[in-house]
Amino acid sequence: MIKAGIIGATGYAGAELVRLLTGHREAEIKWYGSRSYIDKRYAQVYQNMFQIVEDKCLDDNMEELSREVDVIFTATPQGLCASLVNEGILSRTKIVDLSADFRIKDVKVYEQWYGIHHPTPQYIGEAVYGLCEINREAVKKARLIANPGCYPTCTTLSIYPLLKEGLIDPNTIIVDAKSGTSGAGRGAKVDNLFCEVNESIKAYGVATHRHTPEIEEQLSLAAGEPVLMNFTPHLVPMNRGILITAYASLKKETSYEEVKAAYDKYYACERFVRVLDRDVCPQTKWVEGSNYVDVGFKIDERTGRIIIMGAMDNLVKGAAGQAVQNMNLMFGLKESEGLELVPMFP
Amino acid sequence: MIKAGIIGATGYAGAELVRLLTGHREAEIKWYGSRSYIDKRYAQVYQNMFQIVEDKCLDDNMEELSREVDVIFTATPQGLCASLVNEGILSRTKIVDLSADFRIKDVKVYEQWYGIHHPTPQYIGEAVYGLCEINREAVKKARLIANPGCYPTCTTLSIYPLLKEGLIDPNTIIVDAKSGTSGAGRGAKVDNLFCEVNESIKAYGVATHRHTPEIEEQLSLAAGEPVLMNFTPHLVPMNRGILITAYASLKKETSYEEVKAAYDKYYACERFVRVLDRDVCPQTKWVEGSNYVDVGFKIDERTGRIIIMGAMDNLVKGAAGQAVQNMNLMFGLKESEGLELVPMFP
Amino acid sequence: MIKAGIIGATGYAGAELVRLLTGHREAEIKWYGSRSYIDKRYAQVYQNMFQIVEDKCLDDNMEELSREVDVIFTATPQGLCASLVNEGILSRTKIVDLSADFRIKDVKVYEQWYGIHHPTPQYIGEAVYGLCEINREAVKKARLIANPGCYPTCTTLSIYPLLKEGLIDPNTIIVDAKSGTSGAGRGAKVDNLFCEVNESIKAYGVATHRHTPEIEEQLSLAAGEPVLMNFTPHLVPMNRGILITAYASLKKETSYEEVKAAYDKYYACERFVRVLDRDVCPQTKWVEGSNYVDVGFKIDERTGRIIIMGAMDNLVKGAAGQAVQNMNLMFGLKESEGLELVPMFP
Amino acid sequence: MIKAGIIGATGYAGAELVRLLTGHREAEIKWYGSRSYIDKRYAQVYQNMFQIVEDKCLDDNMEELSREVDVIFTATPQGLCASLVNEGILSRTKIVDLSADFRIKDVKVYEQWYGIHHPTPQYIGEAVYGLCEINREAVKKARLIANPGCYPTCTTLSIYPLLKEGLIDPNTIIVDAKSGTSGAGRGAKVDNLFCEVNESIKAYGVATHRHTPEIEEQLSLAAGEPVLMNFTPHLVPMNRGILITAYASLKKETSYEEVKAAYDKYYACERFVRVLDRDVCPQTKWVEGSNYVDVGFKIDERTGRIIIMGAMDNLVKGAAGQAVQNMNLMFGLKESEGLELVPMFP
Repeated sequence: MIKAGIIGATGYAGAELVRLLTGHREAEIKWYGSRSYIDKRYAQVYQNMFQIVEDKCLDDNMEELSREVDVIFTATPQGLCASLVNEGILSRTKIVDLSADFRIKDVKVYEQWYGIHHPTPQYIGEAVYGLCEINREAVKKARLIANPGCYPTCTTLSIYPLLKEGLIDPNTIIVDAKSGTSGAGRGAKVDNLFCEVNESIKAYGVATHRHTPEIEEQLSLAAGEPVLMNFTPHLVPMNRGILITAYASLKKETSYEEVKAAYDKYYACERFVRVLDRDVCPQTKWVEGSNYVDVGFKIDERTGRIIIMGAMDNLVKGAAGQAVQNMNLMFGLKESEGLELVPMFP
Repeated sequence: MIKAGIIGATGYAGAELVRLLTGHREAEIKWYGSRSYIDKRYAQVYQNMFQIVEDKCLDDNMEELSREVDVIFTATPQGLCASLVNEGILSRTKIVDLSADFRIKDVKVYEQWYGIHHPTPQYIGEAVYGLCEINREAVKKARLIANPGCYPTCTTLSIYPLLKEGLIDPNTIIVDAKSGTSGAGRGAKVDNLFCEVNESIKAYGVATHRHTPEIEEQLSLAAGEPVLMNFTPHLVPMNRGILITAYASLKKETSYEEVKAAYDKYYACERFVRVLDRDVCPQTKWVEGSNYVDVGFKIDERTGRIIIMGAMDNLVKGAAGQAVQNMNLMFGLKESEGLELVPMFP
Repeated sequence: MIKAGIIGATGYAGAELVRLLTGHREAEIKWYGSRSYIDKRYAQVYQNMFQIVEDKCLDDNMEELSREVDVIFTATPQGLCASLVNEGILSRTKIVDLSADFRIKDVKVYEQWYGIHHPTPQYIGEAVYGLCEINREAVKKARLIANPGCYPTCTTLSIYPLLKEGLIDPNTIIVDAKSGTSGAGRGAKVDNLFCEVNESIKAYGVATHRHTPEIEEQLSLAAGEPVLMNFTPHLVPMNRGILITAYASLKKETSYEEVKAAYDKYYACERFVRVLDRDVCPQTKWVEGSNYVDVGFKIDERTGRIIIMGAMDNLVKGAAGQAVQNMNLMFGLKESEGLELVPMFP
Repeated sequence: MIKAGIIGATGYAGAELVRLLTGHREAEIKWYGSRSYIDKRYAQVYQNMFQIVEDKCLDDNMEELSREVDVIFTATPQGLCASLVNEGILSRTKIVDLSADFRIKDVKVYEQWYGIHHPTPQYIGEAVYGLCEINREAVKKARLIANPGCYPTCTTLSIYPLLKEGLIDPNTIIVDAKSGTSGAGRGAKVDNLFCEVNESIKAYGVATHRHTPEIEEQLSLAAGEPVLMNFTPHLVPMNRGILITAYASLKKETSYEEVKAAYDKYYACERFVRVLDRDVCPQTKWVEGSNYVDVGFKIDERTGRIIIMGAMDNLVKGAAGQAVQNMNLMFGLKESEGLELVPMFP
């Protein structure tokens, strides 16, 4: 039985980790870290866990935690994991960091977009970007996983085969993303009040969102050349779900079958990527609560562009589910253990 | 492995049965009955089941079905199960009827409230009202289960201990219920369009809702005397969830501890009824996707009344979950098999 | 042109006052008071007012304000208006207080339910409870209006004729209320975040909500005897709207026509109370954005009770609209000036 | 007093026309046409109009109607207006057609995208595309107005100045649009049920949506050269509102001030187009219920693209409001009469 500790267990991503690990047959949570709720019963913070979780919240002492558990999940704002990690901890335990601290290989890019100093850049090289479908073998051997951001996961998986196969012009990529409100976290802000979000849609972080360099790095790796693209996230009045709609120019006239073959080449055996039937557009509701990414596409012969759509639950495949998938790989478990969740509809 | 057939597999309750049975370790679905979608792939009707269910929809031939499966779930409008059931079928297979056909013992009451003729009243006496927490032993021996209605399940479980222990005056009961929109089914009606339901709340079926006699029958059994009560359902702009707020006069001054003891007497060992801590009000979101009923109460000393609140997922404990719970009991399985679902939040 | 000042202009009720007064032909806003946003342009706080309101927010100096305007609206938490009002101010200007400070005639009841000391009880007697349909003549002569609470407005108007005509037993009244989330205000609280409210319903303030004594006082006045009742509010995932569902025992067998006649007696000439046709249940959406209260009822002959339903926009008739209606009466304007708003659907 | 008739008065756009004309001081509705509800009281179909509209629904006899009213609004599916209009009718009355029948100048393009035969192409040339801000003078003289589609209105107004001023490359335009569900109409379809739309987002009509050629025609006129672009609409779980996010490559390095000047050149004096302050992103909620289009933009120096955002109420500026604006111009009234609606928030 793998012993897991969570730092940041009372944020939405942390709470989803609790939900998933509660149903995991080979892991158990030993530490519910939450600086804001120390000594409060976890089930009082998340009443859905009443009679399911009896523990109280603890602090975020990673040193002590590393002596008690096999794996630590840090579901905290950027900067925290980087400020706590050290060689001793890494020698005793594995870490899956859900923050951005170790995702971007060029520390200068990280510091520029996030506006903070990185205290432990020496671990950036070692950290494995935990997009399991792409970096599976490296994940298995890692001791420090940079769990991908929600938008980068959905975007990269949706576009990846087209870049690998050289079907699209990398410099024409535009990603228009839409996210449910849980992506904004559980902080008490006026902008995220029910009455401010409900019955409205808006773009935010236009041309400045921090997931931009992370996406560009992954797309560049896939393309084999530097990629600059536009990324515009939108806030949608729903709890969960990310939909990305991406646009790119096809390098040459390409048939549906050719594109489909590219997707099948990479995803035919993937448990968590579903390439939908022709002309079916993904909907976030069809993946709610599950670890799936649903991908669809449409070729527009008039403009020579392809429109790619990807849908995902931002808290599962976009955060906690992928973290558990990484844990499973790191510990040699069945990759889908604890993640065989059937999407809930309606 | 129990073989299950579903008649009405493409309604919301039927689809929830599919979700739950897909995750059930000792049952498998052999028949996806759906008169409207015969020969269509089930995953095209419910795209969330893409790559999970490969079968096509079949008709509702219960004769043939009874020769192929161990248990039939009828998730259909009232009248259908009653019109199809017969001794031959019941001798070959067990039936869990999610409609109202066999819930009410007095056929005249059924015919009056539902406005239809009951073609097979001879099975009403045999049918067991499948509220597992109350009729567990009878369920185990049944071959025909009348799976309780959503409102009756939530209402009865919330009030039951108070009537059994004689704490409240049965003739003062008023039940104000609120339901998510999935309770209205997947039929294409203007009243259930997004724009008609969203941003609105209304009562419906005031003083005439068909669940009234079913609730009254169950409460009468608990009270040991005939109960008449008011029941008013409301439509709430959310997908899932039922909340009932019930009011009754206490027979005499009663303390919090006395009421709590009454609840504990009946529910302390129940897996799926959670009596919440003092002053905690149930929220439908805290049980979403799970088989729990959460119950809370508050004594108002000023008026001598008690306010009882119960929250439940109408599609799980209020329909498909309870149906699976009944199946588990009928086949001697662990009662919670396939139902150990952690509520999803947010 | 009446000059109006608003203290608390950046809460939801204050913002609704701005919306309504902007469309009012005989009033103009001279003072946008908002302690939190002093010197910030109002349209930056409420972007919907861009190019409509050019002013900046000011402080809440009621002394100065009283020298500049004809009427002051205080849309602030309880305690503020009571702490600022004095004879000098009242001699110069009229006040419509949207808080609870002057609604309850017995100061001890106020202090008990609100848990604060009332600094200026000497004005309680003078203050007129601004439920225009009931206290119209007194409002016309008032200089200090206690603008009714949202729940009390909807409840009182819905039940009033039945008590005045002695049709129901006052001690059997139970009010089950449902409110949109704007009633909770614009404060940044976790409980009011989109993800916490959306897809959920819950009761709150059970047996303890502060509107209880206010409702009881108004119902007692109507009944001519002291009334104790149960009041349970619920939070609904929608922006605007209040629906109350009230239950009471009829004193004797009463026909639909008799009840209808009672409503018509009081409301036939009322512009803002619509008594719906037989068997039509009010929906909050049908009054959204307007100053209407829609009332419907149903007699349940089985139980001898009547179920009364009232729907209203909590920010209009439940707050800002009623405040403007009071202003119109106080200044001898047409009562519906600025309030002839057609409900918006969908 | 202008006499108006509405054909299709019980659809959402027709109902919005009723709402707006009810508040219009110089027009009155004489004919509520609705084939589905003939002889039914309008207020029974739209209960919000109870005690506001007393009339019954009539048929869609345009001949008779043209003898009784000054202006006819056709808020009907494509094909209807084109099949009824004739010289006699046009000689007696003005028509504002809210369908697509007369929007596209090339009848072959219309017939190809809409898949129907156009029965009266002889009026296409005469019809004026009623985008008031752009075609104001022509509208004033018209007798037949093609009221623009919702997406084309929002898109064209958002991009127009950039094309007129030659700032962007027309062949790089990509429009990612998001619409509330009222745009799908009041037809009873499973896809538009509350439970299907709520908590989900999806693209639809990808590369095939019928508004595509309409947008391209308008953008081509602005650019002075043929424009091909991608247009992808999405369905958002909200009642009202359209947001478009458009992407285009700037022809050369361009400053914020230069772009702002382009917008100001065309919109500084426009009552219903609000160019927002720098870095403010439009939100649909900020224009709800009003006739405004809010426009914002952001230059991305990294990619050389500009991101343009436009928000609008699809039922007002995107349908009924623009229709009234056209009527006002045609009859020499103040352009904003009946349209001085303050956006409702929240």
